[in-house]
Amino acid sequence: MQALLVENMDGTPRMVPGEYKTPEPADHELLVKIEATALNRADLLQKSGRYPPPEGASSLLGLEMAGVVEKAGADAGWFSPGDAVFGLLPSGGYAEYCVLPESHVIRKPDSLSFEEAAAIPEAFLTAWQALVWLGNLRKGETVLIHAGGSGVGSAAIQLARQMFDARIITTAGKDDKLETCSRLGADLTINYNRDSFDEVIAHHFGESAVDLIIEFIGEPYWEKNIRSLAMDGRLIYLAMMGGARISEMSLTPILRKRLTIRGSLLRNRSQEYKSELIRDFSSQAMDLLMEGKLKPVIDSIYDWKDVEEAHRRMAGNLNTGKIVLTGM
Amino acid sequence: MQALLVENMDGTPRMVPGEYKTPEPADHELLVKIEATALNRADLLQKSGRYPPPEGASSLLGLEMAGVVEKAGADAGWFSPGDAVFGLLPSGGYAEYCVLPESHVIRKPDSLSFEEAAAIPEAFLTAWQALVWLGNLRKGETVLIHAGGSGVGSAAIQLARQMFDARIITTAGKDDKLETCSRLGADLTINYNRDSFDEVIAHHFGESAVDLIIEFIGEPYWEKNIRSLAMDGRLIYLAMMGGARISEMSLTPILRKRLTIRGSLLRNRSQEYKSELIRDFSSQAMDLLMEGKLKPVIDSIYDWKDVEEAHRRMAGNLNTGKIVLTGM
Repeated sequence: MQALLVENMDGTPRMVPGEYKTPEPADHELLVKIEATALNRADLLQKSGRYPPPEGASSLLGLEMAGVVEKAGADAGWFSPGDAVFGLLPSGGYAEYCVLPESHVIRKPDSLSFEEAAAIPEAFLTAWQALVWLGNLRKGETVLIHAGGSGVGSAAIQLARQMFDARIITTAGKDDKLETCSRLGADLTINYNRDSFDEVIAHHFGESAVDLIIEFIGEPYWEKNIRSLAMDGRLIYLAMMGGARISEMSLTPILRKRLTIRGSLLRNRSQEYKSELIRDFSSQAMDLLMEGKLKPVIDSIYDWKDVEEAHRRMAGNLNTGKIVLTGM
Repeated sequence: MQALLVENMDGTPRMVPGEYKTPEPADHELLVKIEATALNRADLLQKSGRYPPPEGASSLLGLEMAGVVEKAGADAGWFSPGDAVFGLLPSGGYAEYCVLPESHVIRKPDSLSFEEAAAIPEAFLTAWQALVWLGNLRKGETVLIHAGGSGVGSAAIQLARQMFDARIITTAGKDDKLETCSRLGADLTINYNRDSFDEVIAHHFGESAVDLIIEFIGEPYWEKNIRSLAMDGRLIYLAMMGGARISEMSLTPILRKRLTIRGSLLRNRSQEYKSELIRDFSSQAMDLLMEGKLKPVIDSIYDWKDVEEAHRRMAGNLNTGKIVLTGM
C-alpha cells in the first residue's frame, strides 16, 4: 500500500509517499481502508524521532482515522466489510490501510463526513478522559480549559457545555480562536498574550474559583493554576508544552486546598483502557454527536500529499481545531 | 463541666484544668460522657494558636474520644443513654463531656477498652481515607507508608495487610518503631536515619516500584517519593512536617508516569463526608476490629491531668502509636 514515510536525508525529517506493507488483521481486529486521518502534535514529535510508537505498533504516523472496513479478522463480529467507521490508533493513520482492534472503533453516523469523523477520536476521547475519568467533573462546576482552540480544548469546551452545564473559562493566544471558544460554549475567554488568566478569573469569579483545570502548558502556568484552584480542585496535565522545570514551589496548597494533580497520556494506555474509554464515551456522547450538538472543530483539510504544509500549520500553532488529511 | 483549657501567660501555652460550659446536644446529636481521648499532632498546633477549630466547634482540644451516651438530642434514634461509643470530633475531646452528630459515632464492642476505642477514630479513619478513598489501593499493590510508627501509619499498615494483601514498605526513625511495624505486617522497614528509602526500595524491588505512598514529611522526601512511584502511582499528603517549599522540581514524571498527587486533611471535611467515611469504614472493618485483627497501637496512657507530659512525649516524637488520656 501507499503510506507517508519519514525521510531524513539532511537532519530535517520530512514526509514522503512510499510503499509500506499492507497490514493483516489479527483476531478481533479490522482492516480498514482509510478515507481521512487527522493530525496531532504527537505526530511532529514522532516525525523527529522523539516519540516512538508503542511496541508492536506500526512505525507510521497517525493516531486516528475514519474509513471503510475492508476485512474483519477472526472473531471480529461487530463489523462487516463495507461498514463506515472511525477509531483510535497507536500509530499508522498516514496510510491507505490500517488495522485496529474492533473495540477501538465506533460506527460512523451518516450525519458525519469521513473528514469530520477522523477529527473526533483523539480530541474527544482525550477530553473525555481528562474531564470525566481523571477530572471527575460534576454538574455546574467551574472548569478552566487551556488551549481552547486546540482539538482537545475545543472538544472539552463542548463536552463541559453540553453534558455538565459547567461554567467554562478558556485561554488561547488569538482572538479568532477565542471567538470559536465562545461559540462552542465558553463563558469567559482570556487571551494569554494580553492578560494574566489568574487575575482575570479572580476579577470575575473571585479567588480560588476553579474546580478543574485541563492543562497543556506546564511551568509558565504552575503558580497561576494553583492559585486559581478551589478547595478540592483538580489539575489535569495532558502536555507540558511550555516546559516542566519549576524553580520554586510550595506544596502547602496541595494540603490546604486538598488538591489533586495528575498527568495522563492516552497513547501509552493499555488496549483494555482504550476500549473501555471508547465504550464509555460512545455510550454517553454518541447521541449528541449524531444530533450535531457535539461537533469536531475542523481547521482545514489537506490532500495527504500536502502533509508537509499541514505539519507547518500545526507547528506554527496557526490552527483552530483539527487539521485533516484526505485523499489516500 | 471540667475541661483542659489553654493558658498562655508568658508566651508558652500550657494546658490547665478549668470550668467550661457543658454542651447541649442539638438535633441528631449525642451528649457523651468521655472516658478516654487520644492525642493528635493537630492538638499541639491548636494549643499554640496555629490551628483554630472549624467554625461552630468547641474551642477545646481533642479530635476523638470514647465514652458513654449521656443524653440523645431530638431525632437521634440510633443510640440510647448508657450505650458505649467512640467517635470523631472537630474539637472538644479534652473534657468531661462532648456533643457530636450520631453519624460520627460507632458503637464500642465489648472486646475493646475505652482507651483502645479512643485511639481508633483519627488513626483508622485517616488511614482509610488515604488508602481507600484517596489512594484507591488495590489488592496486591505495593504501598509505602511513611511514619509507620505514628497512629495513622500503624493503622495504615494493618489495613493494607489485613484487607488488601499489599506489599508494605514503611519508614521510621527508630528501630523499636520499625519492629512494631514488622509485627503489624510491614514487609520491608527502613530506618530513615540510616538509609535513603528510595535506594533501599530500588535495591529490593527495582526502580519505580511503589503504587501508593502515604506521606507526612513533604520537601525532604519529594524527589525520593517521585522517583519511587510506579506508572499510575499515587502520592497522598496528610501532613508536611518537614517543610513544603521545594526548589527545583520537574513536572515531567507526573505526565510520563501518569502520577496522581493529592493532599487531604480530615478535620476540615464536611459533616456529610465524615459520616460517609465512618459508615464505609465501620461497615468494612468492624469485624476485623472486633476479632482483634485490627488493633490500635497504644503507646501510653496518661491521666488527663498529666496532659503536659503527654504533649511533650508527642512533640519529641517519642511515641509509637497513640497516646491516650483518661480519668476525666
